[in-house]
Amino acid sequence: MYKIIGIIGGMGPAATADLLKKITDMTDAASDQEHIQILIDSNTNIPDRTEAILHGGKDPAPELIASAKRLEAAGADFLIMSCNTAHYFIDRIEEQVRIPFINMPVETARLLRKRGIKKAAVLATDGTIQSGLYGKVLHDEGIEAIYPDEEQQKLIMSVIYGHIKKGILDKEKLPCREMEAICDDLRKRGAGALLLACTELPVAFDKMDLTDDTCFDPTSVLAGAAIRMAGAKVRTGWNY
Amino acid sequence: MYKIIGIIGGMGPAATADLLKKITDMTDAASDQEHIQILIDSNTNIPDRTEAILHGGKDPAPELIASAKRLEAAGADFLIMSCNTAHYFIDRIEEQVRIPFINMPVETARLLRKRGIKKAAVLATDGTIQSGLYGKVLHDEGIEAIYPDEEQQKLIMSVIYGHIKKGILDKEKLPCREMEAICDDLRKRGAGALLLACTELPVAFDKMDLTDDTCFDPTSVLAGAAIRMAGAKVRTGWNY
Repeated sequence: MYKIIGIIGGMGPAATADLLKKITDMTDAASDQEHIQILIDSNTNIPDRTEAILHGGKDPAPELIASAKRLEAAGADFLIMSCNTAHYFIDRIEEQVRIPFINMPVETARLLRKRGIKKAAVLATDGTIQSGLYGKVLHDEGIEAIYPDEEQQKLIMSVIYGHIKKGILDKEKLPCREMEAICDDLRKRGAGALLLACTELPVAFDKMDLTDDTCFDPTSVLAGAAIRMAGAKVRTGWNY
Repeated sequence: MYKIIGIIGGMGPAATADLLKKITDMTDAASDQEHIQILIDSNTNIPDRTEAILHGGKDPAPELIASAKRLEAAGADFLIMSCNTAHYFIDRIEEQVRIPFINMPVETARLLRKRGIKKAAVLATDGTIQSGLYGKVLHDEGIEAIYPDEEQQKLIMSVIYGHIKKGILDKEKLPCREMEAICDDLRKRGAGALLLACTELPVAFDKMDLTDDTCFDPTSVLAGAAIRMAGAKVRTGWNY
């Protein structure tokens, strides 16, 4: 019998669906009953994390805590969150529940260290970057973090907020060539890994056919860590 | 403020992820906060529905009821299930909760009637077909149900249980040509609609590039009905 995974979701809803799909695809199971039980609160009442961190927007912690408690009460054995930026608030959530949390940025940084990465480019929301969230966890693993320049960052934010979160997912409407140029530039600057450190970005990269071996998807890293913590196995062929 | 959707999931986990993705994609929302809150119990302890209906396997109702109660207690305003076959047990679940249920097969049959369909082919598990679940709800809407022959049905079951539920999703490994021949044959027999009445089949049809205008996906019908029941709008461009 596996442990029950609790997912604090809704940040955004597309990323929550993506995480659920990844856990399902990556679990080594041959029938419904061999999969892990998962409880999800796709809580769309959680205020925008970047707004709160950078512009004094409404504090997301109370709703994050409410979801954590709801999942704990429903029977979750441990918690995960499908939003990188929300991990800025993880200490405040952990204080309020008895069950453990898997920290997505920490798991991702550890995996990069194991892969021998020395320098990683962080592609994320303004909130994640300016909060120093990934900078800190990468530094803790001895990895240098580099970031897109101001113009590049504007384009990344427009993909996250202007496309994926709005449900505009057609390849033709996405700025594929501009994003490819940003990836090339970051690799030229020495990045051995591109960290798609906003959960909307793996969705965007897949739509734009930009995913390759240098791209690391914290959502997939988290899916792998959650499968193992639940006591199940990751299907062979997966790299996480 | 929208009503909160409760999803009894895990039947199978891939279909649950597919339903969540469809609700997200189909909701007319421009930010995380404009989406509907959704609670999910992807309950993989629910025994196989077809086994129970046809071969005296373990009764799934107790676990279905446990999930329904768990979701009601967590705050769900109404319930949906991402498994056609499980609707065989819907009366027993409805008796045990106070919140309403949207019935996927009933919603689907109503939509076909509105579209002027007179004869529909039911592609589903042995359990769904032999339970008469879709035969009954289609008949109630004045639609004749036709079914694959025995050989065809074996292939459909092998796609559901031998491929999708096992996570074997590569197009090359799926019996694409054989499935296409089955679809053509059912259309020749007068089916104006192909009902993909097992939630694994829309996943399979997409992978095999077999989805067209004659295919009706109860999961998408259910997603549309749930969005409206929650009080939100279906994004323009969606046909459900």
